[in-house]
Amino acid sequence: MPSVDQSQAAGPGSEQRHPARGGAVQPAPASQQGMRRQNLALVLGAVAAHAPLSRADAAAVTGLTRAAVSSLVVELLREGLVVELGPAPSGRVGRPGNALSLSPTGPAGLGLEVGVEHLAACVVDLRGEVRAQARIPAGNRGRAAEEVLTELVALAEGVVAEARALGLRPVGATLAVPGLVDADANLVVRAPNLGWRALSLPDTLLGLPLAVENEANLGALAELWRGGALDVVHVSAEAGIGAALVVGGRLFRGAGGFAGELGHVPVRPDGPACACGAHGCLEQYAGERAVLAAAGLDLAPGDRIAQLAAHATAGTPRVLAALEQAGTALGTALAGAVNLVDPAAVVLGGAYAELGDWLLPGMRRELAERVLVRPWADASLSVSALGRRGPLLGAALVTIRRIMDDPGAPAVLGG
Amino acid sequence: MPSVDQSQAAGPGSEQRHPARGGAVQPAPASQQGMRRQNLALVLGAVAAHAPLSRADAAAVTGLTRAAVSSLVVELLREGLVVELGPAPSGRVGRPGNALSLSPTGPAGLGLEVGVEHLAACVVDLRGEVRAQARIPAGNRGRAAEEVLTELVALAEGVVAEARALGLRPVGATLAVPGLVDADANLVVRAPNLGWRALSLPDTLLGLPLAVENEANLGALAELWRGGALDVVHVSAEAGIGAALVVGGRLFRGAGGFAGELGHVPVRPDGPACACGAHGCLEQYAGERAVLAAAGLDLAPGDRIAQLAAHATAGTPRVLAALEQAGTALGTALAGAVNLVDPAAVVLGGAYAELGDWLLPGMRRELAERVLVRPWADASLSVSALGRRGPLLGAALVTIRRIMDDPGAPAVLGG
Repeated sequence: MPSVDQSQAAGPGSEQRHPARGGAVQPAPASQQGMRRQNLALVLGAVAAHAPLSRADAAAVTGLTRAAVSSLVVELLREGLVVELGPAPSGRVGRPGNALSLSPTGPAGLGLEVGVEHLAACVVDLRGEVRAQARIPAGNRGRAAEEVLTELVALAEGVVAEARALGLRPVGATLAVPGLVDADANLVVRAPNLGWRALSLPDTLLGLPLAVENEANLGALAELWRGGALDVVHVSAEAGIGAALVVGGRLFRGAGGFAGELGHVPVRPDGPACACGAHGCLEQYAGERAVLAAAGLDLAPGDRIAQLAAHATAGTPRVLAALEQAGTALGTALAGAVNLVDPAAVVLGGAYAELGDWLLPGMRRELAERVLVRPWADASLSVSALGRRGPLLGAALVTIRRIMDDPGAPAVLGG
Repeated sequence: MPSVDQSQAAGPGSEQRHPARGGAVQPAPASQQGMRRQNLALVLGAVAAHAPLSRADAAAVTGLTRAAVSSLVVELLREGLVVELGPAPSGRVGRPGNALSLSPTGPAGLGLEVGVEHLAACVVDLRGEVRAQARIPAGNRGRAAEEVLTELVALAEGVVAEARALGLRPVGATLAVPGLVDADANLVVRAPNLGWRALSLPDTLLGLPLAVENEANLGALAELWRGGALDVVHVSAEAGIGAALVVGGRLFRGAGGFAGELGHVPVRPDGPACACGAHGCLEQYAGERAVLAAAGLDLAPGDRIAQLAAHATAGTPRVLAALEQAGTALGTALAGAVNLVDPAAVVLGGAYAELGDWLLPGMRRELAERVLVRPWADASLSVSALGRRGPLLGAALVTIRRIMDDPGAPAVLGG
């Protein structure tokens, strides 16, 4: 089954390690078939980047011969990955070719999301557009995982049926969860706010290969795949504070899949005790619980972030002070992260994106005062436009990205 | 000219980005020549990992046919990259083939180092062994760069002559400097302790293509290429405190080449003012100057780290307390780094490796108390065995690694 990791691989070429001696990881030898699959991806990528695009221009852009492009396009058309629009404008001599574009039908991606208080599903086409979606409130905290997943499947069935009626054919599904996952093993290692621990997910769902991924990671990937910076610290905060690191256009997981625990970076070594057992972690200053405590609010279940934003908009002084303190602590921790990791951008994503008006000033001030050994511009910190919609979109785009990276893979062809 | 970056690339295959739409970086199309170069690297890598290795075993290890391996080996033999030892032991039917090994002569790498108080050069063979080396004391702080480089060239000439007499043929040189470099532009952006700023280096030195790299990065690469962990925070401390991040077996530079500024991670937000303009940076607790001040020592020029170690060995209480404080601050900053970046290992390298006996207890304690949302073992923190020898060795290995990654490159063949 496909793993989310495939979406980060460099396609059929992929990585290798050749140390001077010992311990070499041997790559597979290059082959004709591998070359063809690589070139299929090359042409499809050119169409994605430059559509509408004639075959002649595809040849020019990719460096392949026109004959090779024509042969590859036949395959892409047959599999429903590209469509012909009409004659392409051309300054060239000879018969004008039909312009190619990504198909608005055919292979598609299914995104699924289990939140602490909602369930959601959507289908995205090859162009990255959401074509069908649904979202329902659901009290998932501490609820049996099987029950949650059964309800999610029912929701997804409706969305997939809607997409199929539009001529779309989902070929893969990815589930976003607020927790630590082992993507290779399709395992939720732990999702404390759901009460999930070592939850093994099935390999397929609705007959589609199923992958699972952390929601912050998917939010970051959604930003990336919609044209975001290639090197980003993507903060995702709500019940907990996490970050996804994107490096060179790839998700950075760390050696054990634990990267991005921004919430447990020490802000003040002697600060208050954290649930993790340490002292002075960022979460003790900027986590939802800490902010609500500092704000003196005891909110009802439901969308607490929206309620916080409402109080802040109303100008409640304690709420403003609590958000100012949270923004400052976020900025201190991020200043360390920026000095260490050197991202091109820091993005405030997830539900906290809706608190940006009140968090950003403190974050900006700390970054400006503490990131001094390298250039740092205020504009390098921004609020995600996708906000809490990011993870679901990212989940659906995982399959699209996999198709784009290797359109000749068996899971796409004749799927 | 070769850039140090080539040493981190995945060989002729390399990376690509295919977002769902827009902004695609187009890779070159796959070619027969590219396949042959990739397969040359594959066979050479197999020999490096498994020597002595017969052609039949090379075929088994690489997945290439025996005929293909034989043809590739002819080229590797001709270029002096591998040698035949004698008949290889084999359980196979048929004529036993000669076992192949990396050549102890032929293409080699030249490493150069400008330290604040020394100059050094060495030549390393394909097997990664140092075959010729020299190191001299030199007061380089504030000295004219041209004068420093002239003296370095004289030192290198002697080392290269010695290597040539052993049948080695250096095909590339890399210079280690204690500062920020732009490797692509062969530029030292700034090396504050040398007084260098925007220093452009020549493309060649002694007729060899010259690259420049930060010394901490090279120290980390030396550890990596000698079998170290693939995901490491490599601390390098002396006058300043830096870190090199190794991720998935590659040097991680960050978006702008500024990654690894561990010395300016905030340890106590309201701490003492730092030279960078911020407050409470790690360097204010663990930098050489801070340690010497806390220790009440006013040492003469020369090897201050060795003098500190001597005082600590003698049990001078203020020195022990200063090193304890430094170790604790290093541990606090590294705990944040570990939570954020999730390395498999943290290595204390550079000259501070010699202070490990006194720094490690505080570092270990802080890491144990603050890295709690993921597993952390004391043994994941270690002291570099190469210590301050790492950067020079890493510099020489850059060329070796480049040869191993792409032995068919014109700069290697017929160089």
